[in-house]
Amino acid sequence: MGIVVQKYGGSSVVNAERIKVVAKRVVKAKSEGNSVVVVVSAVGDSTDNLLKMAYEITSSPPKRELDMLLATGEQMSVALLAMAIEALGYDAISFTGLQVGILTDAAHTKAKIIDIKSDRILSELKKGKIVIVAGFQGVTVDSDITTLGRGGSDTTAVALAAKLKADICEIYTDVEGVFTADPRIVENSRKIDEISYDEMLEMAATGAKVLQARSVEFGRNYGVCIHVRSSFSEKPGTLIKEADAIMEKAIISGVTHDINEAKITILGVPDRPGIAAKVFRNLADANVNVDLIIQNVSEKDYTDISFTVEKDDLTKAKSVVDKMVSELGARGSVRDERIAKISLVGAGMRTHSGVAADMFSALAENNINIGMISTSSIKISCVIDEKDVNLAVRALHEKFGLGK
Amino acid sequence: MGIVVQKYGGSSVVNAERIKVVAKRVVKAKSEGNSVVVVVSAVGDSTDNLLKMAYEITSSPPKRELDMLLATGEQMSVALLAMAIEALGYDAISFTGLQVGILTDAAHTKAKIIDIKSDRILSELKKGKIVIVAGFQGVTVDSDITTLGRGGSDTTAVALAAKLKADICEIYTDVEGVFTADPRIVENSRKIDEISYDEMLEMAATGAKVLQARSVEFGRNYGVCIHVRSSFSEKPGTLIKEADAIMEKAIISGVTHDINEAKITILGVPDRPGIAAKVFRNLADANVNVDLIIQNVSEKDYTDISFTVEKDDLTKAKSVVDKMVSELGARGSVRDERIAKISLVGAGMRTHSGVAADMFSALAENNINIGMISTSSIKISCVIDEKDVNLAVRALHEKFGLGK
Repeated sequence: MGIVVQKYGGSSVVNAERIKVVAKRVVKAKSEGNSVVVVVSAVGDSTDNLLKMAYEITSSPPKRELDMLLATGEQMSVALLAMAIEALGYDAISFTGLQVGILTDAAHTKAKIIDIKSDRILSELKKGKIVIVAGFQGVTVDSDITTLGRGGSDTTAVALAAKLKADICEIYTDVEGVFTADPRIVENSRKIDEISYDEMLEMAATGAKVLQARSVEFGRNYGVCIHVRSSFSEKPGTLIKEADAIMEKAIISGVTHDINEAKITILGVPDRPGIAAKVFRNLADANVNVDLIIQNVSEKDYTDISFTVEKDDLTKAKSVVDKMVSELGARGSVRDERIAKISLVGAGMRTHSGVAADMFSALAENNINIGMISTSSIKISCVIDEKDVNLAVRALHEKFGLGK
Repeated sequence: MGIVVQKYGGSSVVNAERIKVVAKRVVKAKSEGNSVVVVVSAVGDSTDNLLKMAYEITSSPPKRELDMLLATGEQMSVALLAMAIEALGYDAISFTGLQVGILTDAAHTKAKIIDIKSDRILSELKKGKIVIVAGFQGVTVDSDITTLGRGGSDTTAVALAAKLKADICEIYTDVEGVFTADPRIVENSRKIDEISYDEMLEMAATGAKVLQARSVEFGRNYGVCIHVRSSFSEKPGTLIKEADAIMEKAIISGVTHDINEAKITILGVPDRPGIAAKVFRNLADANVNVDLIIQNVSEKDYTDISFTVEKDDLTKAKSVVDKMVSELGARGSVRDERIAKISLVGAGMRTHSGVAADMFSALAENNINIGMISTSSIKISCVIDEKDVNLAVRALHEKFGLGK
């Protein structure tokens, strides 16, 4: 009998009616002969409400206590889902991250999973019970409650699937799978049936919201087959797995975009060894995640360094940079929030030349100016003006023939 | 340095403002040189909201999952209080019942504390931290979350005080202490400065709402000095402790009343050995708590058995009794919901005769009919018509000179 891990997000458990729908879906998998483990996020917007309560108390809540508070959200949803499943006549048992032994480091609010103790889950599965595990949360060796940060429940699900050697990890979401481009922008965008871990990683990293890069990475490292599918329909979604012979070999899998980044440029930096290291070390120390980095060729011993960060981190990043400007002997810094990153992702790129050229000309034909370019073996990203983003997505989707 | 355990109820942490007030009070005890352990109930009416969520899912939620759900209430309040204390510049750390190791039996929704592991609390106190513990909840040996039932947070506080050998267990509430009678009924009722465990137990058992009998029993068994006081004022409240020489030796400590009971009478029961045992065994098996029991002297080999139960249990109790009526060869049963129990409590009763006579005549002088009578060495209870309850409380308070 195989093990199926299912993960349901907050919008799937937003109220009693939706929880009952999820229960039916879970029970269906069980009645088909599977051992079923379910990972659930916090009920609807409960996390936001909890954060609001915390900030009414203090503007800087200690992170350990924030995790203690936030972890109640998933604890509620697992208990409620267990009740709904038992009401359908099936045995269910819910667990917090602490109870199930999802061991993490002590980096509160963004902890990383170190190990999972699977014995209690396996013993309950053996009894025929449906096991429900709180997503997003774990526990340190000292039994302090941690949370895993954004997309944490996806990571919980994939990590559990890896540990339990599950046949499949089903991620239920409000879209039908991974698309060749955002269906809200490109009308004839197509659902991708199968995609490799590497491509999915690049798509997630460049703006596809359906799954966090972190959980895909976990899946790749442990060979977990991930099925992203809709909680509203029975149709198959997108399978994320090791690239193999039968997998469709498109040159380009999809077009992604991201408007949540901002750009900072440090102007007139002396072109000496160690400068870049210093800049990005200081940003890392301030917990700022940097995405793209471009350093132009130097001109008269001075250069400009540009990089992108998440908009939420812009103020922090700018203040780190401004403190360094005189120390570095730079001329100053500028920021730009009205940027978008647009990317082409595809494993076929490796063996096809001319993709970059085609991409740049498609943008040029639409009068879209390119600010920064960054490439990997299966991805090309361009930073453009935010106002051009929809036009650019449609142009690239059309250019590479990704539609139905 | 002594250890102080403070307990705050749900109304003390109903919103951010109130939580900040509690934080100041906690910090004051700490700054006076004490090691401080705080027990907190769930925020305001959050328990009711959680129950509502559960009953939207199913009419009979499994008790294990109900405990899982309800335990989130206190987890929220301990985290929020820790944040408020840290915002005042003091180190605080919060714990759930599971984390602190409040070991209970597996009787979900009404578990009993078996033991408390105090090592983590003591090590945090040693670091100078204020330790905040979720009330009302514990954990089984299998790490399943339990709740302690009504008044559970008081019990948590007193049990912790016992385990930690605390100097005092302060129970903060919305009244100033224990009164000679309900101040809403008797205008000149007086706050009692000191009272013995036994008297407090009888007062709690006969209707004084300020503290659950269960926590007083715990206090008595382990010699924990309990201070019931107002969270709104600095004035001392009521000390509950071992009776000693300096304790005021009133004949009567107070008048209590309870309108939450109902009476069932089984009519025409054959007067044979074993009948009463059978009746009350069946009621116990149905989880009905019986308070007063009266069996009148038999008349022509038949007798009537009357007993009182909580109103909430009346329907269940009546159906248990009705099933037995023919088996017992009884004539039938009647129920009465419009009753009140009124009680006099006082350790001095032991050595003073005539208290019962005085009580009955005070009631008679006010034309109040007595339905049932039950006595212990330090208590006399009478069941009367519900409509007479306020009149009776005032008459007895006056008769025994309990006012200011």
